[in-house]
Amino acid sequence: MRPLGLDEVRITGGFWAQRQETNASATLAHIEHWLEREGWLPNFDLAVHGGLPEGRRGREFSDSEVYKLLEAMAWELAREPDAALEARFDAIVRRVAAAQETDGYVSTMFGRPGQGERYSDLEWGHELYCQGHLMQAAVARARTGHLDDLLVRVARRSADHVCATFGPDGNPGVCGHAEVEVALAELGRVLDEPRYVRQAALFVERRGHATLADIEWGRSYYQDDVPVRDAEVFRGHAVRANYLAAGAIDVGVETDDDALVAAVARQWDRTHAARTYVTGGQGSHHQDEAFGEDFVLPPDRAYSETCAGVGSVMVAWRLLLAQGHPRYADAVERTLFNVVATSPAHDGRAFYYANTLHQRVPGETPAPDAVSKRAESSLRAPWFDVSCCPPNVARTFASLAGYLATVDDGGLQLHQYASSEIRAALPSGERVAVDVETRYPTEGRVRVTVVEAPGSRWALTLRVPAWSPTASLRVDGGVERRVPAGVVAVPDLRAGSVVELDLDMSPRFLHPDDRIDAVRGCVAVQRGPEVLCVESVDLPDGHDVADLRVDPSVPPREADGRVVVRGVVVDHRVRTWPYVPVDDADAREPVGAPAGGDGMVHDIALVPYHDWANRGPSTMRVWMPTR
Amino acid sequence: MRPLGLDEVRITGGFWAQRQETNASATLAHIEHWLEREGWLPNFDLAVHGGLPEGRRGREFSDSEVYKLLEAMAWELAREPDAALEARFDAIVRRVAAAQETDGYVSTMFGRPGQGERYSDLEWGHELYCQGHLMQAAVARARTGHLDDLLVRVARRSADHVCATFGPDGNPGVCGHAEVEVALAELGRVLDEPRYVRQAALFVERRGHATLADIEWGRSYYQDDVPVRDAEVFRGHAVRANYLAAGAIDVGVETDDDALVAAVARQWDRTHAARTYVTGGQGSHHQDEAFGEDFVLPPDRAYSETCAGVGSVMVAWRLLLAQGHPRYADAVERTLFNVVATSPAHDGRAFYYANTLHQRVPGETPAPDAVSKRAESSLRAPWFDVSCCPPNVARTFASLAGYLATVDDGGLQLHQYASSEIRAALPSGERVAVDVETRYPTEGRVRVTVVEAPGSRWALTLRVPAWSPTASLRVDGGVERRVPAGVVAVPDLRAGSVVELDLDMSPRFLHPDDRIDAVRGCVAVQRGPEVLCVESVDLPDGHDVADLRVDPSVPPREADGRVVVRGVVVDHRVRTWPYVPVDDADAREPVGAPAGGDGMVHDIALVPYHDWANRGPSTMRVWMPTR
Repeated sequence: MRPLGLDEVRITGGFWAQRQETNASATLAHIEHWLEREGWLPNFDLAVHGGLPEGRRGREFSDSEVYKLLEAMAWELAREPDAALEARFDAIVRRVAAAQETDGYVSTMFGRPGQGERYSDLEWGHELYCQGHLMQAAVARARTGHLDDLLVRVARRSADHVCATFGPDGNPGVCGHAEVEVALAELGRVLDEPRYVRQAALFVERRGHATLADIEWGRSYYQDDVPVRDAEVFRGHAVRANYLAAGAIDVGVETDDDALVAAVARQWDRTHAARTYVTGGQGSHHQDEAFGEDFVLPPDRAYSETCAGVGSVMVAWRLLLAQGHPRYADAVERTLFNVVATSPAHDGRAFYYANTLHQRVPGETPAPDAVSKRAESSLRAPWFDVSCCPPNVARTFASLAGYLATVDDGGLQLHQYASSEIRAALPSGERVAVDVETRYPTEGRVRVTVVEAPGSRWALTLRVPAWSPTASLRVDGGVERRVPAGVVAVPDLRAGSVVELDLDMSPRFLHPDDRIDAVRGCVAVQRGPEVLCVESVDLPDGHDVADLRVDPSVPPREADGRVVVRGVVVDHRVRTWPYVPVDDADAREPVGAPAGGDGMVHDIALVPYHDWANRGPSTMRVWMPTR
Repeated sequence: MRPLGLDEVRITGGFWAQRQETNASATLAHIEHWLEREGWLPNFDLAVHGGLPEGRRGREFSDSEVYKLLEAMAWELAREPDAALEARFDAIVRRVAAAQETDGYVSTMFGRPGQGERYSDLEWGHELYCQGHLMQAAVARARTGHLDDLLVRVARRSADHVCATFGPDGNPGVCGHAEVEVALAELGRVLDEPRYVRQAALFVERRGHATLADIEWGRSYYQDDVPVRDAEVFRGHAVRANYLAAGAIDVGVETDDDALVAAVARQWDRTHAARTYVTGGQGSHHQDEAFGEDFVLPPDRAYSETCAGVGSVMVAWRLLLAQGHPRYADAVERTLFNVVATSPAHDGRAFYYANTLHQRVPGETPAPDAVSKRAESSLRAPWFDVSCCPPNVARTFASLAGYLATVDDGGLQLHQYASSEIRAALPSGERVAVDVETRYPTEGRVRVTVVEAPGSRWALTLRVPAWSPTASLRVDGGVERRVPAGVVAVPDLRAGSVVELDLDMSPRFLHPDDRIDAVRGCVAVQRGPEVLCVESVDLPDGHDVADLRVDPSVPPREADGRVVVRGVVVDHRVRTWPYVPVDDADAREPVGAPAGGDGMVHDIALVPYHDWANRGPSTMRVWMPTR
């Protein structure tokens, strides 16, 4: 399946359009402001004027945040041309270009007198990681019609330098943070430079052979413990693991290495079956921002880093393109709605870095002018000491239209639903054009109007998400037919035809696999693609979410535009020691919890998880204990 | 209540005597070997001969491991005099003494050209922490009859230096790792030096006023967020929190500051009600080795550092002495049996640093000659990069007899049960002597023979642990009477009298407070003071502990010398996504789990938790899901 460019798909309204607007109008400038303020962008100027290393500010990977902003801007300029933004983009590109060494190397952190030597700290230096993000920004520029832009030329020189330095006869190392693999593969593809793809393949093959140091958390932290094609599951640092997997798939696809793609797909299956939160979030260790063992998925210590969600979308999207199974599109949807969309505040100027599924103590509102710690239990913060997530959200939102649809020899496939205009060419060269209208995910109806149809046989294929046990489909006002979850293909539509898909948006309880010990005896609620949660601000009488016990025999239902569940709130007995003999049932049972039916039973309103903590400090839980 | 010296109480046989023997015969030499091998002891020689900082090895706190070994040796020399051990002890003391600066300061890490300046890194430098452990070693020496030993003189000079440097008009700082507080208070008490106690008091009062830097995990990490007397609960790094609390109690007692003692007691209550594992273990974060929020007690990510257990025993013991309530002795017992005793292997040459309550993947046996990482999920290791725990266990075991009994105006109190000889003087000067015979904790009978009785009125007070709902007491073969949990006083016994206490050792299920989400729907089993666990090596047909479902309606019982529970083992359905709608009950229920009664129901044998992982790699859980 071929992905579509931003000139072929455009989101025209609804949930994601609103986020794209906020991203364009607020987030990009917000990030640029903080990059200037914290010195991460001025570091490039210091590099030009001899002010390094003395004046350098930021962590070793701060260059990458500048590149991710450039990538976001590049996608945004294709989504919605804007001369002022173009000028800001050009200015930043020029500052970066000026700092590039004559041999193509670029870093504000290494290589000067008083700094570490180039590539002297592959474990933590992030030089290849940063240059990878530079290349990825150039990919966005090249993919949006600027194949010989200054940014592309800078990235090309950087890629040439990387190939010259780390080629088959060069430095045999890999970067402690995967990223350059996917970047080189994408840059090689868009610029038709097989050398870059070969270098990406070399990096992928080298990893897992213990060339990096054995750190406190082991080499699994940077996936240098087991070769990519031998691994059984994603492990270690969740962002690193996903970026590496994305690069490995790209390499596998570009080099027709089906075994490599299959190896990553196998790892993805186990990772999704045993190491992924219901939100799609990944990473259950705070210590090393890492995956835990299978079924270690504590909601209250969920790390679920926003960037890991972005990386997970990258991986699932590539597997969808390579293998076509709708479960990958389900995963993209789940992660976009419940991880990536959770990070930014409504105003696009504050973010979650980690995304807990259970807030036990109300957070505090970070000061708007302060740098926050990345994983503290607070409300969304404007900026972090490690601020990878805000620009990662920005580049994802700006390029979001690209995830909606694909084409192949058989026609057009719709994977994600948003009001949109799709104007694409099939591999045969024939044009296909459809308009999508929907109030998704508020409502489950998706209406597709065929604007232009190929003359030869083709099909419009629609995804029926796994959360919708059945859906109904109607073509040109004809008879409704029920279709199961998966995909449904509608053949040979003509211009003017209308396809209506109605997904089952009923809210449903979800039960966890009982090996996920941390949520045993709890239920979650999902409605459409959205995982819901309960916030203490919606509980009666000042109760906390710890006090809620849900009645799983009463299905969640919609009332006054919100999903509600039936439950009781209980008072907890004060105990001096929390472990009591089984025969002390009276002490174990919370008081104030009637068998049901009287005034103490409440309807509790839930909110979409991505919307939590927008009404001030509260406690929150996704998984709710049952009685 | 007055604690007894090692010249007044001696453990003569049984569970703890065996561990004391192993400690003496194997562990002390093992630790000495590794301290030499890793250079932590030779660092002192380098300090004398000008080999620092170039030749220095070990982390910034490595000096303290030498001091803790000295403390362990000092206690051991009082428990069981041994000329060869005395000579080794003296040799180490001389090497330490030689490295002391003329003004009393001692550190192999700071203060020389090429090293950091003294006290230039109070957050992480550990200089006061190390010197505190030096003082604590001297306390052991002074408490065992050597009030003017070289070690005591060295510690006195160090304490004088600390008072001169950090006194009311001096450096206003505190150490990032509490320890010097309790050490100064104890040294001041044993040497009758009120200056040291006042300095300890000053350090306690200074903490909590944000004089240390605000690090990634916040100032709560080193308890510098809230003043000691204002805090509500133990928080931050669990070892630091307990050491500080111990120091604060000592200061409170020595300065008659009841409010300070009451503040720590209040914090202890909430900490034990909401932040302590069923084993007595503390600390649920790997990231910062810290307490989590209330009820964040994941068994699979339990940190429960051995040193935090040692610190927790120190705190509970001091609260027992100050306030007399038996719940503190219960906590001492729980933590000794289930945390401190869990750390060392049977041979005394390998240790757990962290003590998980749920091992999901079998660990690997560390190489006997390799330094292990402190918190990896492996079997007990001979030594760690951070190796605070082995010498902490050693000093605790060597001084264990001191926790058994106290005297006060009313007589003699027995707090912990072990075969022992107690020869003490009451505050009145009258002698009291008893012999204790017991096979505790294998059996619950404790037989106390009065060898020498005071002439005036007195009582022998016995603790009835909270886990024994009732016990039976018989004096001189008379009528048995039932006594409730708490304490029972037997008045005016004469020499030759025999008191027999029979504790209820029936194994019992424990249910967790239902706010501890991580173990909802699970039971644990306790028998006497021992928490039990299930290991995969005891499951049928190669099943893993993840497959066990216990029937809570069948009480645990004893069979063939082991405790068994009734349960089934289940096969888990393979799933691609582990969250399923509630109405998909069939997919949710594990297969292979009959309603009960046929051949698939098994009796599953448990082992004491402290004994786990002594039969090779296995998976293990303390909390077992019920059906």
